[in-house]
Amino acid sequence: MPNPLLIAPQWIVPVDPAATDPRDHDRAPRVLTDHALLIEADRIAALLALGEARQRYPHAETLALPGHLLAPGFVNLHAHAAMALLRGVGDDLPLERWLQQRIWPLESRLVGAQFVHDGALLAFHEMLLGGITCVNDMYFFPEAAITAAAALGIRSVHGIIVIDFPSAWASDAADYLRKGLQLRDRMRDEPLVSFCLAPHAPYTVNDGALRRIATLSRELGLPIHTHVHETREEVEAGIAQHGMRPLERLAELGVVGPELIAVHAVHLSESDLRLLADAGASVAHCPHSNLKLASGIAPTARMHELGITVGLGTDGSASNNRLDLLGEARTAALLAKGDSGSAEAWPAARTLRAMTLDAARALGMDDRIGSIEVGKQADLVALDLSGAELAPVFDPVSHLVYCCGREHVRHVWVAGRHVVNKRQIADDSARVVIHEVVGRTAVWHNRVGEILSGQV
Amino acid sequence: MPNPLLIAPQWIVPVDPAATDPRDHDRAPRVLTDHALLIEADRIAALLALGEARQRYPHAETLALPGHLLAPGFVNLHAHAAMALLRGVGDDLPLERWLQQRIWPLESRLVGAQFVHDGALLAFHEMLLGGITCVNDMYFFPEAAITAAAALGIRSVHGIIVIDFPSAWASDAADYLRKGLQLRDRMRDEPLVSFCLAPHAPYTVNDGALRRIATLSRELGLPIHTHVHETREEVEAGIAQHGMRPLERLAELGVVGPELIAVHAVHLSESDLRLLADAGASVAHCPHSNLKLASGIAPTARMHELGITVGLGTDGSASNNRLDLLGEARTAALLAKGDSGSAEAWPAARTLRAMTLDAARALGMDDRIGSIEVGKQADLVALDLSGAELAPVFDPVSHLVYCCGREHVRHVWVAGRHVVNKRQIADDSARVVIHEVVGRTAVWHNRVGEILSGQV
Repeated sequence: MPNPLLIAPQWIVPVDPAATDPRDHDRAPRVLTDHALLIEADRIAALLALGEARQRYPHAETLALPGHLLAPGFVNLHAHAAMALLRGVGDDLPLERWLQQRIWPLESRLVGAQFVHDGALLAFHEMLLGGITCVNDMYFFPEAAITAAAALGIRSVHGIIVIDFPSAWASDAADYLRKGLQLRDRMRDEPLVSFCLAPHAPYTVNDGALRRIATLSRELGLPIHTHVHETREEVEAGIAQHGMRPLERLAELGVVGPELIAVHAVHLSESDLRLLADAGASVAHCPHSNLKLASGIAPTARMHELGITVGLGTDGSASNNRLDLLGEARTAALLAKGDSGSAEAWPAARTLRAMTLDAARALGMDDRIGSIEVGKQADLVALDLSGAELAPVFDPVSHLVYCCGREHVRHVWVAGRHVVNKRQIADDSARVVIHEVVGRTAVWHNRVGEILSGQV
Repeated sequence: MPNPLLIAPQWIVPVDPAATDPRDHDRAPRVLTDHALLIEADRIAALLALGEARQRYPHAETLALPGHLLAPGFVNLHAHAAMALLRGVGDDLPLERWLQQRIWPLESRLVGAQFVHDGALLAFHEMLLGGITCVNDMYFFPEAAITAAAALGIRSVHGIIVIDFPSAWASDAADYLRKGLQLRDRMRDEPLVSFCLAPHAPYTVNDGALRRIATLSRELGLPIHTHVHETREEVEAGIAQHGMRPLERLAELGVVGPELIAVHAVHLSESDLRLLADAGASVAHCPHSNLKLASGIAPTARMHELGITVGLGTDGSASNNRLDLLGEARTAALLAKGDSGSAEAWPAARTLRAMTLDAARALGMDDRIGSIEVGKQADLVALDLSGAELAPVFDPVSHLVYCCGREHVRHVWVAGRHVVNKRQIADDSARVVIHEVVGRTAVWHNRVGEILSGQV
């Protein structure tokens, strides 16, 4: 498909960033009809009435999308993409057995650049088919994930992972930091790649490393992406070891500020919530993962009341076997209502914002992505709402959140490039890459089976 | 596609009814590979090793389905199909405003045979595309829903609805019962149609009518399908009015027995749970609807502990905008874990049973449907697990519950008839019917808009 390109869908939902009062986000969002959007190079070059568009750009190639809704591409605020290769190996197990009998033995034997590359290819492919245009990933061997992202054309943020324990990737906290920062330097000219600091969790990173991360975050302007208060046991163990709640300790070490993306944030006291709100920190809410591991239900209705920016994450395939932000969004909206007792919590418009602009804001990228505005990157998703299974359409935003599945994602653009065309990966070479990795996945499948059965 | 037909998928998951100990249902189910299933007329005529099948049926037409899982068709244990025409008209509203400002004004103006027919067509079409082969429906003008079901070939159970209030369909409880029983008589030769008694709810049906329903249920062998303990307010109001909990009142009136399908069953005390368990009653669990209306979270992990048969329902489109049992199943499995704190609650195998055999048992139809057994009706769904977004497949049953979406449902058979072929309605005339109803939906759409804006 040529570029510049004029897209003329039935509805455009810009996810208006002008509304800065959090209470405004619950209102019905602006939905444009009879409008068109012009992609030029990697950007949204125009957003205007269809008649005017035809006059001003008479020679632009036009993609008419009757019955389609055009929205900002979805932003996956927390993932471990490589773990797609472990999809479904540890279902229905309590967290300890899940970690000790499945995930850790497998990771210790398998993780390396090839594992990360192949798993990330599978995960990014799945995400693109579901309209995810930007993913915030945290795993070992991030360079291999970057190679996978480049092959498919997805925008990616990579955690400079820091953990006190050695792995095949690095030996100690200082080594993790050094390798991650070196990679960041090498990637500085890659327009679709960016970085954040990713201390694994308060209970796996020492005070000194956390202080250093807080300093680096300020110096380099990098977000800090960390698991926090995922389980009750984690909070209790933190209190036992440090005499304070993990979030209090992070605050003391300088980690809790606007740059913090607190992943999970399930077990929060009112004072934890106020700490996050006062600091301007964000939350990466992963409802399916939190339910599947029986961690609990994050107090997301209260987060919105306090004005905390909440984005959505799929987490990795080992704790959430389907990497689908539309599914997370529907569950997030429903769970917020059911858990808080208020059907007005997490209305559709606010939920769409969590999938897009609020996640972009958490990543410090809302100047470039997360909404449909002239000058922003052309990261877009077109959903086909014309099927009988979606009729009637009273409100396309309600349909996006409460009705749509991955089967309705028909076109995806990242930085102006058409990456998904009619539900298929558009690029020939990317399709070959996916075909090849599916072949290699059979080999990974066998190795996993051998390890779990104690054969190797 | 001709019949007899030999289907040769990669995996067959029979959902073994032999396991009668509830604790067995949590174990890994039998998964057959290198097997084939023979459909002859409306039945499963054989289930045997592939080699043997080729020898015994050398001339049978064969459908090879590499990478596919063949499972029993899904059974939707609670629906209000006609409400598909109200999909998304009342999102994000508290229950009272939802009912008083949206649902009741619209129903009072719109409900009639044509509304029910058109809404049911949309709903049954959506259900079939998602692998639902049998639906337990409750609404006014059931004859119109039966016409819609026949046009698409879905198996349906229709509630003989009883409510103390007049509607366009009937004037009082006795009239509802009379009309419903007459319809049942007229439909006695329809192989895909059956009935249950459907008192709307304890708070909308008087004692005399409920006693009469209990008697009729025993005389005619009909299940009783009723909303019960959906909200906290309902339970409190029941206690205030009758001096006992609604379920206790139903038990006194003879309604709580093995024939009872208690829909929602969200707010249950331990004694309520034991009452249901001791009576051998079943529950129709509707997780998305209960969350969306902020009713709460049903104690489904405890239900399984007590051996209560739990099926899954989509409810109507006004409280759950997507009629998708795969989505309900995933949420049911995840929610049971997150709410109970045990990741072992509602494992995949047990969840698949809730989608199939347990729902069939609740309807008293487990002698005919709900599992893959020779002699049972050929109600089947084939899911395509070969896509890169599902690789690797360690456990196809885990994939069905935790990964699959409607996009993976590729073939559906009801009573041996191929109703969905490669994700499309197979029958030409059924496709015409759907095309026509989508056209009429635009008219319904306008009428809803006029009513809600006070124009008519």
